[in-house]
Amino acid sequence: MIVCTTIQEAREVLAKQRLQAPQEQIGFVPTMGYLHEGHASLMQRAKAECGYAVLSIFVNPLQFGPNEDFDRYPRSAENDIALAEANGIDLLFMPTVSEMYPVKPLTRVVIDSVTDRLCGASRPGHFDGVGIVVSKLFHIIEPHRAFFGMKDAQQVAVIQRMVDDLNIPVAIVPCDTVREADGLAMSSRNVYLSEEERRQAVVLSQTLRSAESWVMEPGMTAAKLEGQIRDAITSAPLAEIDYAELLSYPDLSPLEAGVQLSDCRSTLIVALAVKFGRTRLIDNRLILPRGGVQHV
Amino acid sequence: MIVCTTIQEAREVLAKQRLQAPQEQIGFVPTMGYLHEGHASLMQRAKAECGYAVLSIFVNPLQFGPNEDFDRYPRSAENDIALAEANGIDLLFMPTVSEMYPVKPLTRVVIDSVTDRLCGASRPGHFDGVGIVVSKLFHIIEPHRAFFGMKDAQQVAVIQRMVDDLNIPVAIVPCDTVREADGLAMSSRNVYLSEEERRQAVVLSQTLRSAESWVMEPGMTAAKLEGQIRDAITSAPLAEIDYAELLSYPDLSPLEAGVQLSDCRSTLIVALAVKFGRTRLIDNRLILPRGGVQHV
Repeated sequence: MIVCTTIQEAREVLAKQRLQAPQEQIGFVPTMGYLHEGHASLMQRAKAECGYAVLSIFVNPLQFGPNEDFDRYPRSAENDIALAEANGIDLLFMPTVSEMYPVKPLTRVVIDSVTDRLCGASRPGHFDGVGIVVSKLFHIIEPHRAFFGMKDAQQVAVIQRMVDDLNIPVAIVPCDTVREADGLAMSSRNVYLSEEERRQAVVLSQTLRSAESWVMEPGMTAAKLEGQIRDAITSAPLAEIDYAELLSYPDLSPLEAGVQLSDCRSTLIVALAVKFGRTRLIDNRLILPRGGVQHV
Repeated sequence: MIVCTTIQEAREVLAKQRLQAPQEQIGFVPTMGYLHEGHASLMQRAKAECGYAVLSIFVNPLQFGPNEDFDRYPRSAENDIALAEANGIDLLFMPTVSEMYPVKPLTRVVIDSVTDRLCGASRPGHFDGVGIVVSKLFHIIEPHRAFFGMKDAQQVAVIQRMVDDLNIPVAIVPCDTVREADGLAMSSRNVYLSEEERRQAVVLSQTLRSAESWVMEPGMTAAKLEGQIRDAITSAPLAEIDYAELLSYPDLSPLEAGVQLSDCRSTLIVALAVKFGRTRLIDNRLILPRGGVQHV
């Protein structure tokens, strides 16, 4: 595995790879590091589907709000390097902030509409930061395929829309969320949880599983479902709901009030953001009312 | 020369070219068609500097304002195809509006600050349209080098900044403005001019030449220079000034009031937009106060 910290080095390594193996695909997994089994599954899939696998680790300051956890976001370079190597990564790109942003960028990549709700609403500016950093990484790595975890379903929808609108020559591959034995979605932020918060955090995945069956109940509407979801989550005393919404996917627009969910023919998403103390967790489940969970 | 009207066709032709000649560079000239000798010089340079030359012709509706000349912008496909072939183009990409924008894009590529003045101020939204279409074309063609005429100096500055901020893997090559015998900058819009307007339009290039010597005069300031420029232009009775400004280049920020131009060490630009009847012409000149005109 080659480790590069500068854009120029990474481009040189990739140019050589392309020249040596012009028919081989390049798979890319962009991350913020502190790698867990969710990332491992993305790396393994990148390596399996493409001959050459690239991982980036970059905690992007532009996607954190002023009162968010950029400074205390967990970092563990040594462990990450070992995990990348163990999971088949050929090139690890770990730039510094000043390498990625040598001057304040004047260019903004803004994705409208799909960012109006969920994390776009509760983290103002977050997706502008995602838009610019993912654009930059795609232009530096120039991958054939890029692998993203569906825990960040809105991020996947936003990036897919950016790629479509701008004709960026990369295939976005959404990958199933990897979960702990009790159902908690893997996340670098899980490390923040106290023992008691960790125990109660299972309420997110449990509620999503329940929501899937509630959707099929006769007479169920979006408003009623959201009410039941909120009740289920707040049954965990430490849970504080940031959002709990049912939307259509991937456009992430709200359903018409009063529509019978069992009549819906489009893919829906139940998306949750819940705080336990200072730690904000997200999770979601895609639901096809007439066909069960869709594995994208 | 191969002519393609769809993105997929163009990509297939280019993928084949890259595989056949992996070491050969791809040069790209994006245009709105109605080709003239200015475009011809860009095409010739693309072919000379790169082994393979691509021309695009696309009148981009997103960079025209609601009261601008999108509908009456001059078009001449047959003549353009002949000119492209005569000037060494290997691939001509001529997409329709619905090919480039199958749905309304939700993504915006916004370049701040360098778009605050000149055409960015007098044509609101113009550079947002340039940002998205140039991003799309770069992603479709994936050129090594892209050639732009310096008549649109602000456009060159905006695109260079976008490319830098987003790490788009293309070299921007600014090319000298090509002029008619009397000095008028070549432009597709010159065809709109009446005989009398055409005669008077020479005042732009004449004033820019004068401005270059005025800059060197002792005691000359930006405000005084702009006054002299406005007087010179309005000596042509049909000329109506949209803007006439002296700025630093390429950041396109105004100079401090009262600064002695002969003390300036940075590159300056005198930029003009002048209407003759319904026709708006632009022209500019880069000035190095201590070294004369810079050929970029």
